[in-house]
Amino acid sequence: MKKITLGEISGDATTKVLQALEQAGDDVIVQFTGACYHFWPERAYEAYYFISNNRHGLKRIGLPLINRRNVTIDGGGAQFIFHGEIIPFVVDRSTGITLRNFSVDWERPFYSQGEVVASDVDGVDVALDPIMYPYRIETGHLIFEGEGWESPLTTGVFAFDPKTRAPAYLSGDSMGLGYPKNIRAEAVGKGVVRLCANFPQLPELGMVVVFRHHHRHIPAVFLIASQDLLLEGVTLFQAGGMGIIGQFCENVKLLACEVTPAAGRIFSVCADASHFVNCRGEIRVEDCLFENQLDDPLNVHGLNTRITEIIDGHTILVELVHHEQHGVSVGFTGDAMRFSDNATLLGYARNKIAEVERINARYARVRFVDPLTEEVKLNHVIENMDWTPDLYVTGCTIRNNRARGFLASTPGKIRIWGNQISASGSGIKISGDANYWFESGAVEDVEIRDNDFGECCYGDAPWGKAVIDIDPEIAHPETNPACFHRNIRIENNRFATSDIGILFARSVDGLTFAGNQIRQTGFYPAVGRMSQALTFEGCRSVLVEGNEGLAPEGTHSQALTGPSTI
Amino acid sequence: MKKITLGEISGDATTKVLQALEQAGDDVIVQFTGACYHFWPERAYEAYYFISNNRHGLKRIGLPLINRRNVTIDGGGAQFIFHGEIIPFVVDRSTGITLRNFSVDWERPFYSQGEVVASDVDGVDVALDPIMYPYRIETGHLIFEGEGWESPLTTGVFAFDPKTRAPAYLSGDSMGLGYPKNIRAEAVGKGVVRLCANFPQLPELGMVVVFRHHHRHIPAVFLIASQDLLLEGVTLFQAGGMGIIGQFCENVKLLACEVTPAAGRIFSVCADASHFVNCRGEIRVEDCLFENQLDDPLNVHGLNTRITEIIDGHTILVELVHHEQHGVSVGFTGDAMRFSDNATLLGYARNKIAEVERINARYARVRFVDPLTEEVKLNHVIENMDWTPDLYVTGCTIRNNRARGFLASTPGKIRIWGNQISASGSGIKISGDANYWFESGAVEDVEIRDNDFGECCYGDAPWGKAVIDIDPEIAHPETNPACFHRNIRIENNRFATSDIGILFARSVDGLTFAGNQIRQTGFYPAVGRMSQALTFEGCRSVLVEGNEGLAPEGTHSQALTGPSTI
Repeated sequence: MKKITLGEISGDATTKVLQALEQAGDDVIVQFTGACYHFWPERAYEAYYFISNNRHGLKRIGLPLINRRNVTIDGGGAQFIFHGEIIPFVVDRSTGITLRNFSVDWERPFYSQGEVVASDVDGVDVALDPIMYPYRIETGHLIFEGEGWESPLTTGVFAFDPKTRAPAYLSGDSMGLGYPKNIRAEAVGKGVVRLCANFPQLPELGMVVVFRHHHRHIPAVFLIASQDLLLEGVTLFQAGGMGIIGQFCENVKLLACEVTPAAGRIFSVCADASHFVNCRGEIRVEDCLFENQLDDPLNVHGLNTRITEIIDGHTILVELVHHEQHGVSVGFTGDAMRFSDNATLLGYARNKIAEVERINARYARVRFVDPLTEEVKLNHVIENMDWTPDLYVTGCTIRNNRARGFLASTPGKIRIWGNQISASGSGIKISGDANYWFESGAVEDVEIRDNDFGECCYGDAPWGKAVIDIDPEIAHPETNPACFHRNIRIENNRFATSDIGILFARSVDGLTFAGNQIRQTGFYPAVGRMSQALTFEGCRSVLVEGNEGLAPEGTHSQALTGPSTI
Repeated sequence: MKKITLGEISGDATTKVLQALEQAGDDVIVQFTGACYHFWPERAYEAYYFISNNRHGLKRIGLPLINRRNVTIDGGGAQFIFHGEIIPFVVDRSTGITLRNFSVDWERPFYSQGEVVASDVDGVDVALDPIMYPYRIETGHLIFEGEGWESPLTTGVFAFDPKTRAPAYLSGDSMGLGYPKNIRAEAVGKGVVRLCANFPQLPELGMVVVFRHHHRHIPAVFLIASQDLLLEGVTLFQAGGMGIIGQFCENVKLLACEVTPAAGRIFSVCADASHFVNCRGEIRVEDCLFENQLDDPLNVHGLNTRITEIIDGHTILVELVHHEQHGVSVGFTGDAMRFSDNATLLGYARNKIAEVERINARYARVRFVDPLTEEVKLNHVIENMDWTPDLYVTGCTIRNNRARGFLASTPGKIRIWGNQISASGSGIKISGDANYWFESGAVEDVEIRDNDFGECCYGDAPWGKAVIDIDPEIAHPETNPACFHRNIRIENNRFATSDIGILFARSVDGLTFAGNQIRQTGFYPAVGRMSQALTFEGCRSVLVEGNEGLAPEGTHSQALTGPSTI
C-alpha cells in the first residue's frame, strides 16, 4: 500500500492536511511524522450531518474521509489539537478506514471546571482559572468564552470528588437540581463564582465542579454509512459531544483506545465515550479505557420510530421522536422492519421496506412490500432488523463517568468478557423503550462473563438501581404475554461494590446468574435502592446457582416470590 | 393553462397543500378558494438554505416551488396563517412563477409589543398582553414564548409613537442603547414588565415598545436562482426575517404588494420589506406599500467578497465576511468579476471565473480565466458584474419603518419615479462598502424623479443625515483618483421635511439636482445633522439648478466650496 507522510505544519494545519488527504487518494497510509498539529474550523471542510444522539447541524470537519477506500491515518503518536467548533474526524460512505496512533484534544475545551471553596444552603462558591476557562457573568448568567464561541450553562454543573476522581457520591446533575434552565451566578472575588441555588446535594470543599456549557454539537469521531473501520491507539481527551459515534456502519473495531482527561482536568469528553446506532456486522471494543466522560462509556442500540399515521394498506407515516434522533434514516429499500406494541414492546410483525420518502428530519413516509397487518396501530413503533450488530467488549476498563456503564441493546450476540467495570450508575444496562428515548433492541443472546465489577450505583438514582440493570420500559411486565429480552447469561463475574443491588431483571426469558462472587466493599455507605441482591420482574426460566457471597442466603429467592413468572 | 383548485382545509393544511403543489405539475394555476389556511412546520418540506442578509439554516417551508415552470399560486384573497418557524414560500431554480392575491401572517408573531405605562432614568415599565404575546421572566431575562420556540430579546426593543405610527423621534435601537446583550427585566405587576436600563432616549407614556426577540431565520418569501417572478397583491403582515428576499434571480416584479401591520400591531415584518442580492434583469417594484417593518423597505445590491489569499497567478481565496452573507455563491463559471481596492472602492480589473471551489460557507477558491493583474492585493474585493439588475421603483409608498428608505446599489438603470417616501433615516441611500457590510454596487445611471419626500432622518443618527444620502464608504473621497458613483439625476421631486439636510453626495461624477421643491414642515424639531441642504464631498460635474425653497440661497454653494472637486 502506498504511503504519504506529513511532517510538521506550523499554524493552522487544516488546509494542508485536507489537501494531502484529497491528493492521497485511496489504498494509502497517511503517516503523520510531526509531534503536534493544530486545526481551526475557519477554512475547514463543511457539511450538514444528522448525528444520532448528538446535535445535527452544519459542521466544520478537520479530517473528512468521504467516499474513500482503504485509507489509514497513522498519527505516529501526534497530538491533534483542535480550536473551536470543528469535528476532528468524519468517516462517511467509506470502507476499510483505520485511524491510528494519535490523541485529540481542544485548546479550550467545551466544558470548564473549578474547585469548591465555600458552600451553604443558598449556594456554592467555585474558584475557576480564568485563563484556562475564560468566562464572564452577565445579568446573573455565567457565560463561558471559547475560541469562536461563547455559551451559558446548558445542562448545568456536575460535581466530581478529586479523591476518587469519580462523580461525587449521590450527587446527580447539578448536584441534585437536574437541568435547571439557569443557575444564577455572582462574582464573589477574582476568579470565584457563586452559584446561587439550593443544591440538594451540597458538595464538600475541595470538590471539583464541572460546568456543562455546550450541547452535543462536536463529537470527536463520526462514522456514518461505512464499513470495516478500525480505531487503534486513539486517545480522546475532549469532545464537544460524544467521543465516537457510529450510525449505519458495518464492522467497527475500537482497539486500545482511551477516553480520558487531559492533565489538570477531571473531565474527558462531554457525553458518551462511544455510541453505535443502527449498525451491523460486529462492533468490537477491546482493551479500551473510558473514564471521566460526562455520559455512558458505550451504548449500542437501534431506533424505535413511532407510527403517527396509517396512510394506506401499505404505507405509514413515522416519526423520529427524540430530537437527537432527528434526521437519522429509518432504513432503506429492502430492510426488514419489526413492528412492536409501544406498551408491551413486543414485536408482532415484520415487513420489508418498499420505499422511504423523507418528509423532513422528523417524519418519513414508509411504504412496505407486504400489506400492513391488522395489529398496526398509532403509537406503535418500527425498528430496523437489518441494522443490528453483534457486540464484543473485552479487556476494557470503564470508570468515574457520569451515568451508566455498558448499554447494550441489540439482538445480535453480545459478549461482555473480562472487563473492569465501574460507573456511577449501573455497570451494565440492557433496556429498550418505545415511549421516551425510543432506543430499541430486545436482546437474544448475551454473555456477561469474567468481569470485575467495582463500585456502581453511587450516583443519582435514575442512573441505576443495580450493578446489572435489565429494565425494558414495559408498564406491566408481569402480565406481558411474552418476555421482551431472552437468553442472558451472567457467569463467573466478581462483584465488589458497596451497594446491595447486583442484578435487576425485567421481562427476560432465560436468565442465568451463576458462578459469580459477590463482595460488599463498604467503600461508600450502601445506597439501598434495592432490598436484595437479585430481583426479577416478569422473568421466565431463571437459573441462579453456584454464586459466592449472596448472603444472607435466600435474598434472591425472596425476590423470586415477587411478580416473577418463574 | 390548466387550473387546479384547493378549497377549505381544516387544521394543518401543510401536507395537503404540498401534495397538491406536487401533483399539479408545471404550466398550472393553483387556485385557492377557501378563506383561510393554516400551516405548521411539523410535517413541512425541509431544506437547508443560505439566505443572504437573513440567517442560514435548515428550514421548514410551507409552499416550496422548486424546479418548477409556469406556476401561478392564486390565493383568491385567502389568509395564509403560519404557526412557528416555517418559511411560507421558497421559489428555487424555477421560471415563470406568480404568487398572487393572498396575505401572510403568523398566529403568534416573532416580535411582541406593549405600551409604556411608566418610565424614569432607571427604566421603563411596559404593559404587554400576555395572551397575544406570551412571555416569562427568568433570572432577569425576558423570554418570549411562541409556537414551538422561545427566545430572549435578540436585538433589544424599539419604540414607536402611536400618534404618528412611526418610530419615536430620535429614538434608535433600544431607545438609544443599540443592541445590548441583555436588558434586565423585572415583573412589576400582572402583565407589566420593567425594563431596567438607563435608556438615553426615554419614551413618552403611551408609546409602543416593540420587543425584538428573533433573529432573521424566517423570511416570508425567499427567491433563489429563479427567473421571471411576479408577486402581485400579496400582503405580508409578519415574517421572522425579511418580507421578500431574492438572490441570483432574474426579472422579479412586485406589483401592488403590501408589507403592513396586522390590526392591533404597530410592527409588520421583522426586517427589510424587500431585498435583492446579486440579481439581474429587471427588479420592478410598483404600487407597493411598505410600512412599519423593522428595517429598510427595499435594498438592491451585490456582494463584495474579500481576497484573503493569493494562491497562484490565476487563483485567489475569497471570504464572505458578513455572517449574513455566508453561504451565498460568489458566482459561476464564466461570470465577469470586478476587482476593487477596499480603500478607494475603485475597480481596476475584470476577469472571468474559470472555476469556483467552495471551501465552506465562508470561503471559496476562485480560479480565473486570465492571469491576475499586479494590482491584486489582500483585502481587496471582487464583485460579480454579471448579476446586476436594472431597478424600477414607481408608485410606491414607504413610511414609518426603522432605518432607511430605498437602498439602491446596482450599476444597471435605477429609476425611482413617483413614489411617496418617508423613513426614520434617509429616504434614499446609495452607498457601497468593502469593509463592513460588503454590499457592492457603484451606480452608473440613476434617475430620482417626481417623488414626494415626507419626513425623513427623524430617527437614530446612523440611519441618515440627509433625505438622499449618497455615501460610499471611502476614507478619502477628496483625493480619490476617480469617483465611485456616476450619473445621478435628482429632478422634479418635492421635499417636505423638518430637517435641513436634503442631499449628501460623496464621490459622484455627474450629479444633477434640479427642478426640485423643498419645504420645511416644522413637524419635528429640526435634527440638524447637516448644516445646509446640499453637501458634496469629492464629487465632479455637479449641476444644481431650478430648485425652489433652497433658502437661504447660497446654502448649497457654501457646501460646494468644501472638499468638492467641482
